[in-house]
Amino acid sequence: MDLTRSPLARPFPDLPAIAGVTLRSVRAGYKAWDRADLTLVELVEGTAVAGVFTKSACASSEVEMGREQLHQGTARALVVNAGNSNAFTGYRGREAVEQIVAQVAEGLGCAPEQVFVSSTGVIGVPLPRDVARAGVAAALEAAPCSWEQAAAAIGTTDTFTKGAGASAMIGETRVEFAGIVKGSGMIAPDMATMLGYVFTDARVAPALLQDMLARANAATFSCITVDGDTSTSDTVLAFATGRAEHPEIRSWDDSGADAVFAALQSVCRELAHLVVRDGEGARKFIAVSVSGAQSDDSARRIGLSIANSPLVKTAIAGGDANWGRVVMAVGKAGEPADRDSLSIGFGGVWAARDGQPLADYDETPVARHLQGEEITIKVDLGLGAGRATVWTCDLTHGYIDINADYRS
Amino acid sequence: MDLTRSPLARPFPDLPAIAGVTLRSVRAGYKAWDRADLTLVELVEGTAVAGVFTKSACASSEVEMGREQLHQGTARALVVNAGNSNAFTGYRGREAVEQIVAQVAEGLGCAPEQVFVSSTGVIGVPLPRDVARAGVAAALEAAPCSWEQAAAAIGTTDTFTKGAGASAMIGETRVEFAGIVKGSGMIAPDMATMLGYVFTDARVAPALLQDMLARANAATFSCITVDGDTSTSDTVLAFATGRAEHPEIRSWDDSGADAVFAALQSVCRELAHLVVRDGEGARKFIAVSVSGAQSDDSARRIGLSIANSPLVKTAIAGGDANWGRVVMAVGKAGEPADRDSLSIGFGGVWAARDGQPLADYDETPVARHLQGEEITIKVDLGLGAGRATVWTCDLTHGYIDINADYRS
Repeated sequence: MDLTRSPLARPFPDLPAIAGVTLRSVRAGYKAWDRADLTLVELVEGTAVAGVFTKSACASSEVEMGREQLHQGTARALVVNAGNSNAFTGYRGREAVEQIVAQVAEGLGCAPEQVFVSSTGVIGVPLPRDVARAGVAAALEAAPCSWEQAAAAIGTTDTFTKGAGASAMIGETRVEFAGIVKGSGMIAPDMATMLGYVFTDARVAPALLQDMLARANAATFSCITVDGDTSTSDTVLAFATGRAEHPEIRSWDDSGADAVFAALQSVCRELAHLVVRDGEGARKFIAVSVSGAQSDDSARRIGLSIANSPLVKTAIAGGDANWGRVVMAVGKAGEPADRDSLSIGFGGVWAARDGQPLADYDETPVARHLQGEEITIKVDLGLGAGRATVWTCDLTHGYIDINADYRS
Repeated sequence: MDLTRSPLARPFPDLPAIAGVTLRSVRAGYKAWDRADLTLVELVEGTAVAGVFTKSACASSEVEMGREQLHQGTARALVVNAGNSNAFTGYRGREAVEQIVAQVAEGLGCAPEQVFVSSTGVIGVPLPRDVARAGVAAALEAAPCSWEQAAAAIGTTDTFTKGAGASAMIGETRVEFAGIVKGSGMIAPDMATMLGYVFTDARVAPALLQDMLARANAATFSCITVDGDTSTSDTVLAFATGRAEHPEIRSWDDSGADAVFAALQSVCRELAHLVVRDGEGARKFIAVSVSGAQSDDSARRIGLSIANSPLVKTAIAGGDANWGRVVMAVGKAGEPADRDSLSIGFGGVWAARDGQPLADYDETPVARHLQGEEITIKVDLGLGAGRATVWTCDLTHGYIDINADYRS
C-alpha cells in the first residue's frame, strides 16, 4: 500500500524543550520495518499526570492499566509501542504490559504505577514479550531524540508527523507546552484512534491537571471524527513536570490557571486538527459549526451527525453544496430540531433559512468555496443558545484504498 | 453517472394480483427523463392501512400528513412521486401534497384523508404543482400496469426493480401478499431511504395491521443499513383490501393472525434484503448475527454498530477477515459488552473465543468465504439471551463514485 503524504499535511513545528522531559526512541521491531517503533519518555520526579481514554467497552490492557494508574497522580515514564495494539489479547496482553512496566520501573528506579504504556497497531496479536524486553533495554540506554523523531516513532499509518506547541505566562514565568499525536483512521467522537501526549514544565496539581485535560479534550479531541469508528486504545495523556519556577497551581482560581488551560487547549486543538488533516484519504478539512441548539452538547451531537454522514462527506469530496444531505443528517441526529427554523450555509453563505431554500441563493461563491481545501458548514437550529464546532474530512476513494487492504 | 445493475440484484419475481388493488403509472416529468415517475395505486373501499415512517426530526410534509391520516385507518389511494422528495420545502411543499390529495380524492370520489402520498428524490425543491396536476390527471385515466412497472416507476437511483410476494392460508382461504420497494442509498436503521408498500387481500382490522407492520418492520427494515444515513422521507405502508373471503382478523388470537403476520414479515424481510442488495456500490451482502447480548434491542444496536462501521465494511470489501475491527465496533456501540467473553466468527468459523484469538484458528476457509457474495459475521457476547440479525453491504469505490456527484 502506498501511503502518500496527505495534501492537508502541515510541516512539523519547532517545539521547545520541556525541562524534565527526555525523549528516546528505538527500533524494537514490532513489525518488519526499518524505523523506530518504541518510544520511551523519561519524566522528572514529581511530574503530575492526567489522562482521558477511549470509551470502548473492549479497551486494551494498556487503557485499563492507565486508568488505574492515574489515581496516584504522578508519572516517571511513558512507553509507546507502534505496530501492535496488544488489544483483545486477554491475560497474555496484560502480562506483556506488566513486563514493560516492571522493566522500566527497575531501570529508572521508580514505582511501577508511575510507568504509563500505550500500544497501537494490529488488534488481537499479543505484544511479543521478547521484542518488547529487548526494545525497552535498548531505549533505556539510547541517546535522547527530538520531538519530531518521537512523533515519527509513535506513528503507524500516519502520512506525516504531528506536533504542536504553545507557551503561557504565569506572572513573570514563561511555561512551555509541547505535544505530539498519532492517528489517521478509526478516528471518532469520544476520542480518536489516537495516541496524544502533551508535556509542560508548568507546576499543576494532578487533580486540576485532570480537570483541565478533560475540559480541553471535550472541545477538541472529542469534536473530531474521520469515520465514526472508535479504537480500543485511544489515549491522551498530559504531563506537567513542575520544573518551571512558579507557585503550584492547585485550583482554577489560582494565578496562571487560565493561561495554562488556554495553552493546553490550544495544543490539544491543533493536535486534533492535525489528526483530521491526516484522515485516511482526506482531501478537504471540514469545520461544522452548529449554533442555536438546545444545549452545547446537543449542538456537538448534531455536528457529529453531520460530520459522520457518508453522504455529506462524499458530497464535499465531490464539491457539491448538497445542503439537503445536511438537513438529513440534522434530522437523524436524534436531537431537538425543527425543520421550519433550520438554516444551513457553506463558506459563510446561507443556502437555506428557516426551513426553506433561499429564493436568491447564489451557488457561485459556494461552488468556489467547495473547490478549496478548507470547508466550513454552518447550521443554525433557531432553538436555543447551544453551540459547538466539530471537525472532519471528506470521504474519498483514498479511504477505501487504504482500508480495504490494511490489517489493522 | 453510470448506474450499472448491482451484482447482487435479484430478478423481479412473479407476483400475484391482489383483489382490490389497481396499479397505474405515468410519466409526470419530475425530471428530464423518459420513464414513468408517478404511480397511482387505487384501493377498493374498506381497505385497511398501516404505516411506519422515518424518525427524522426534519421529515417531509408527505410523512407528516401520512402520520396524521393513519388515525382513521382506511385508504383509497396511494400516490408515489419519483425524482423530487419535496422535503425541506416549507409551506410550499405542504401545499403541493394537499393539491395531489384533493385531486385524487375528487377523481376517485373519496375522502382526502384516504389518499396517501410519498415523494422521493432531490431535497429542497418544492414539488412542481403543475407537473403534479397533469401527472395525476393522466394517471387517473391510464390503463393498469404490472407490479414490475409500478416498482420501476417508484425507483430513483435503484439499479434494479424490487418486489416480493407471499401467501398464507386462513382456514380454507388463501390470501396473497405483494410488495414493492425502492431505495439504494441513505439507508439506515430506523428505516431506510426507502419507500416500501405491501398489499394483501386479507381482511385485517387497521389497529392489528398497524401492530403487525410495526413488529415486522422492527425485525426487517429497521435491521438494515447501507451507510447509517436516514432520509427525511422514509415510509413503509401496508394495505389490506379485505377482498378475501374470511372473517375479519381483529386480534392476535384470531384464526389466521399468525399466518398473516408471517407472510407480511416475510415480504418485508425480502424487500429489506433487496434494498441492501442495491446498496450504492455494494458487492457483498453481509448478515451480522449477534447473540448473547443483554437484550434483543442491545443485540440489534451492536449489530448496527458493526454494520455501520466503515472500517468493517471496507475490510469485507477487501476480503479481509479483520475481526479486530469487529471488536472495535462492538466496543464503541455503547452497549453492555465484556471483552473477555466476546467471540467473533466469519462464515461459521470462530476466529476468537472468550476475548482471545483462537490458537488453532485456520484462516483458509474464512478467506474463501470472504471471496463470496454472501458474508456472515457472527458475534457472541456471552452475557445474556438477547439476539438479533442485521443486514448490510460492503463499502466500495462504487459508493464514492455514486455519492460524490449525485445531487440527492
